[in-house]
Amino acid sequence: MYKQVYKAIENKDKTAIQNLAKKQVEAGADMLDVNTGPYAKDPKDTMKWLVDTIQEVVSSGLVLDSTKSEVIEEGLKLAKSKSMINSVNADDEKLNTIMPLVKKYNTMVIGLTMDKKGIPRDRNERMEHAAKIITFSEQGGIDPKDVYIDPIALPLNVAQQQAVEVLESIKEFRALCDPPPKTVIGLSNISQGTKKRSLINTTFLLMAMAGGLSAAILDPLDKQLMDSMITGGLMLNKNIYCDSFLQAYRKKR
Amino acid sequence: MYKQVYKAIENKDKTAIQNLAKKQVEAGADMLDVNTGPYAKDPKDTMKWLVDTIQEVVSSGLVLDSTKSEVIEEGLKLAKSKSMINSVNADDEKLNTIMPLVKKYNTMVIGLTMDKKGIPRDRNERMEHAAKIITFSEQGGIDPKDVYIDPIALPLNVAQQQAVEVLESIKEFRALCDPPPKTVIGLSNISQGTKKRSLINTTFLLMAMAGGLSAAILDPLDKQLMDSMITGGLMLNKNIYCDSFLQAYRKKR
Repeated sequence: MYKQVYKAIENKDKTAIQNLAKKQVEAGADMLDVNTGPYAKDPKDTMKWLVDTIQEVVSSGLVLDSTKSEVIEEGLKLAKSKSMINSVNADDEKLNTIMPLVKKYNTMVIGLTMDKKGIPRDRNERMEHAAKIITFSEQGGIDPKDVYIDPIALPLNVAQQQAVEVLESIKEFRALCDPPPKTVIGLSNISQGTKKRSLINTTFLLMAMAGGLSAAILDPLDKQLMDSMITGGLMLNKNIYCDSFLQAYRKKR
Repeated sequence: MYKQVYKAIENKDKTAIQNLAKKQVEAGADMLDVNTGPYAKDPKDTMKWLVDTIQEVVSSGLVLDSTKSEVIEEGLKLAKSKSMINSVNADDEKLNTIMPLVKKYNTMVIGLTMDKKGIPRDRNERMEHAAKIITFSEQGGIDPKDVYIDPIALPLNVAQQQAVEVLESIKEFRALCDPPPKTVIGLSNISQGTKKRSLINTTFLLMAMAGGLSAAILDPLDKQLMDSMITGGLMLNKNIYCDSFLQAYRKKR
């Protein structure tokens, strides 16, 4: 899917972007991730073009996804619904750059449990980073319920022992504050390079939901994955069982 | 599948029973549930015939499944591997009848969290019943690791709010003793009467595994379900990732 999107961006193909946005919303996406890709010649212009293009056809909130705060801010200026910034982390410089944008534009934000030293090695490091991000948010007057902590899933085929660390982190984060912080995972990481991507993504998502996961960045066009997510919601009493519960969920979008 | 088994029992069709037993073991079953069915004319003889028939072709442990202790005991007398009794519950009479068999034949046992008053209404009632069963076992000199507590899954379409009670019970039981008690669910209950049985069974199993479930009674011939169970084991570091992890798991049987 990435290739298809990059090509559409390169060719300024509005129809391709708009069709994908509409399809994702119809499939059950609550928000849409907007990323210019690493090779955009002018990422600020590309972000503006993407946000305008998507907002012409859907009214969903947008997840503005860039490593550069100035690119994110171009999207924030244009966004019509409450946005989410993807992402901040526990690094001081990053916190000082991104969190003022969260406050100024009243957005949500994804807080990755890592810093300059790199990815977390275990649940304890994840917990420390999460505590730092939450404390910084609270001190900056940001509503904690707008902060989604991401424990960072890693590929199962190279870091298998990290899967259980991530699952346990999602549970342990709940002790950090009251009400507990929200949590999110970028799901596709877990299956990167494996042979059974949809099965592994689905399995991990359900196990994370059982531990209290609030949200996930995922491919809403993966039907097996979405069916499972909707069914997981039934188990947690988030939506009501009826024989046509899968269709009912998608119609609500 | 039940109909097929009952018919084989009625016709004393050894080949049908043996083929099913072999197929279930090849598909990844660790133990095989043996139930004479509610309509067997002579349940004791039927149990003996089933145990002998199955043990001719596979060496797996057997789960002796009957409401009558004398039927279970006929199976226990013949069983060559360590068996499991399905089931005891928190009713005094039942505990006094079944637990001596667990001790005498050195078996495992499933302890249903219910009593004469019926099925549990919430996680608290489940916890009370579990505590009673575990205390009774310990006092009777039964190794706690041979006791599998079953929080009793109920059909999602008539008792949806019970799903989360069961999932939370599995987590809460862990506080009952150290090491924590083992847990088991009879999986097919959750999807009884629903339109998406395999999807609902799979979803519930993975969410229960994430909470620490030790075992499940399920249909090992449901490939989607077994693939998910095996993948769930990867996430919990119970088996090791390789590109052919699904085949590798089944070959170990």
